[in-house]
Amino acid sequence: MNRFQWDSSFSVDFNLQNGFSEKAETTKRYLSQMKEMFYDTNAAEKILEQEDPLIYEFHELGCPMREGDLAFGTTILYPGKVGEEYFMTKGHFHTILDTAEVYYTLDGEGCMIMENPEGETMEMPLKKGEALYVPRRYAHRSVNTGDTPLVMFFTFAANAGHDYGTIETKGYRKILVEKECGPVVIDNPKWS
Amino acid sequence: MNRFQWDSSFSVDFNLQNGFSEKAETTKRYLSQMKEMFYDTNAAEKILEQEDPLIYEFHELGCPMREGDLAFGTTILYPGKVGEEYFMTKGHFHTILDTAEVYYTLDGEGCMIMENPEGETMEMPLKKGEALYVPRRYAHRSVNTGDTPLVMFFTFAANAGHDYGTIETKGYRKILVEKECGPVVIDNPKWS
Ligand SMILES: [Mn+2]
Ligand SMILES: [Mn+2]
Repeated sequence: MNRFQWDSSFSVDFNLQNGFSEKAETTKRYLSQMKEMFYDTNAAEKILEQEDPLIYEFHELGCPMREGDLAFGTTILYPGKVGEEYFMTKGHFHTILDTAEVYYTLDGEGCMIMENPEGETMEMPLKKGEALYVPRRYAHRSVNTGDTPLVMFFTFAANAGHDYGTIETKGYRKILVEKECGPVVIDNPKWS
Repeated sequence: MNRFQWDSSFSVDFNLQNGFSEKAETTKRYLSQMKEMFYDTNAAEKILEQEDPLIYEFHELGCPMREGDLAFGTTILYPGKVGEEYFMTKGHFHTILDTAEVYYTLDGEGCMIMENPEGETMEMPLKKGEALYVPRRYAHRSVNTGDTPLVMFFTFAANAGHDYGTIETKGYRKILVEKECGPVVIDNPKWS
């Protein structure tokens, strides 16, 4: 259990290569918790007959949802695919839609896919040593297109809130799949 | 001049070792701009007779001061002393006092010295691979106690605002000086 004093100062170690902390635990997301999110449901089922792979883990430090506080931590997104679709995070809108997020990639490579409620979509590369700005109003999901863990340090307003439901119900408009030429953004066949 | 589109997504490279960016310029603070802040004014004058050393530099990416946006960048604080006082940043309160800041130290070692308007003070170590939380209501100044640049990636609410004047006028209650046993926090003789 992560317990910190947000009215005082505290520090949390985050390994600059692998993102892990000795002080803070991660929350884990396994394939079984998000199998409906991958477009190739059969491929997901087939994997789950054998094992339930860890897709990603991230830090929830327990920041109170107060205006003026900042939530932060790292996300470690593992390499892998479900069918031809890369491992990815669930993705979410912020409940307070007009709140941004900063991601600083510590290791690995991937892509941030974003869309706003009006249906405008954006995809941006995630590269080691680059900070990516996710603007206000955009749902965001990271995707690992490499062979090693994608490790990102994130910060967002503690009162932003997470709306996962919209993405779980409707899906993303765009998904990222591996083709012979490499990673390709395509329309999500499952989007509704 | 740093120009980014805060309503869209963009990325900025920040070297994970030295903090520098090829895309973004830094703002520089030289000793001549902050000589009154060091308690040993004679030592400062003596240095300035010979040279005007760069104390620190940091990124101002031009984020609009809008609610929900996040300003971010790195600070590179050089090693050195003025008399027995270590090189440090100017330090400031946020104009919106109830806004926090997250610092993630990429390299070097030092100390964050903090105080709130009620006069409560805190000092916390800054270490490579550790994120430090500066809570709401606390003025914050970083100090380099090592022999190499102290490099930090920071994020704060874009509308927080900076109040440098209070610190410039009154000074900090506590300062960090080098004694034979190492870095020591002492009462600021110049505090008023
Ligand atoms: Mn988010
Ligand atoms: Mn600040």
